[in-house]
Amino acid sequence: MITLYHCTAARSFRPLWALEELGLPYELKMLPFPPRAFAKDYLALNPLGTIPLLIDGDTRMTESAAILQYLVTRHGPTPLAVGVDEPSYGAFLNWLHFGEATLTFPQTLVLRYGKLEPEERRSPQVTADYAKWFLGRLRAVEAAVASNETLCAGRFTVADISVGYALLLADRIGLAKDFGPAVVAYWQQLQARDGFRRAVNAENFAGEAQKVKSFWS
Amino acid sequence: MITLYHCTAARSFRPLWALEELGLPYELKMLPFPPRAFAKDYLALNPLGTIPLLIDGDTRMTESAAILQYLVTRHGPTPLAVGVDEPSYGAFLNWLHFGEATLTFPQTLVLRYGKLEPEERRSPQVTADYAKWFLGRLRAVEAAVASNETLCAGRFTVADISVGYALLLADRIGLAKDFGPAVVAYWQQLQARDGFRRAVNAENFAGEAQKVKSFWS
Repeated sequence: MITLYHCTAARSFRPLWALEELGLPYELKMLPFPPRAFAKDYLALNPLGTIPLLIDGDTRMTESAAILQYLVTRHGPTPLAVGVDEPSYGAFLNWLHFGEATLTFPQTLVLRYGKLEPEERRSPQVTADYAKWFLGRLRAVEAAVASNETLCAGRFTVADISVGYALLLADRIGLAKDFGPAVVAYWQQLQARDGFRRAVNAENFAGEAQKVKSFWS
Repeated sequence: MITLYHCTAARSFRPLWALEELGLPYELKMLPFPPRAFAKDYLALNPLGTIPLLIDGDTRMTESAAILQYLVTRHGPTPLAVGVDEPSYGAFLNWLHFGEATLTFPQTLVLRYGKLEPEERRSPQVTADYAKWFLGRLRAVEAAVASNETLCAGRFTVADISVGYALLLADRIGLAKDFGPAVVAYWQQLQARDGFRRAVNAENFAGEAQKVKSFWS
């Protein structure tokens, strides 16, 4: 049985969404955000205190985009993966990494210096710099989905989950108002997927059952 | 023939190092840093202006850690990859992503707000925040290499290249003085590899031949 440690709308939503798309059995453990401060027991499991943590037998993983690749290959075969011999293999890997390394980290700066830090440590300059950075890089997504429903391979894959999570975060922190029209349509389609909805429901249900208050509510 | 666009000591050093470890033929195109400002022709090839860009037939990739995974699978088999069925597969993918998403992005903030920005836009606070962040996350590497020569699978893999590049960057921007003893030894071993030295030589040779001045010199 796979165990996933998760905070509402955190990067751990990527593996949660993938688990629902794949139909794999899993146990969802909800944590308050940030667990480093509010769930100190968690540090015994993941000394870095970061989210996610996925445990699958002897495998322990903390990088959300890496977990996507792991799930669709170790627990495949599935059309959510793009195979090594498919023409889109390189594009698939690129989007998988792009969603996190290029589209998510800059947003954490917008969140940190615009909202999480105490007033005297906030920085409108850094917040603006990385909102601009994120929106600049997002032009690559706008171009990719302008004439395709998904990022690559002519089908929905975990690359769409990787980038889709970056759009979810942008929506939460107020950057969605600057999405281009193709990204708006793409993000709406992603949210309409059964797998996405099941993941949101699982998150809400587990949060209530485990009495863990969401950072966002 | 693979073509790699590279700036000295930029993230593109990851694919360069992997190409040398694999012994694959490639063409190395050197660019001044940042190419967005000093090599505007490059924007026609990569509209984001980011480095690296790797072109392999119809495949175009811009994410350095994704390129590592691509090279060792599309151009494998090689012991530089960890196979899906090996016990360390999850750890391998995790370190591959960790090297970029967790260990490299924070350093770009130290570089940007400590050195690249004009004086009036620099931020000692952000520089200190992300130096601390990087060194905190680096404890995971310290723990991993305290009793092993490499990060996973009992051998050198592209996961070591992903994390090794983060150490190279840390060395350049003055964070290596705070490495723990196991990371110091690990980083020395990585630099002693023939593949690493060939990559450094290739970078120097191409830089001189193409008359591209290094940002670091």
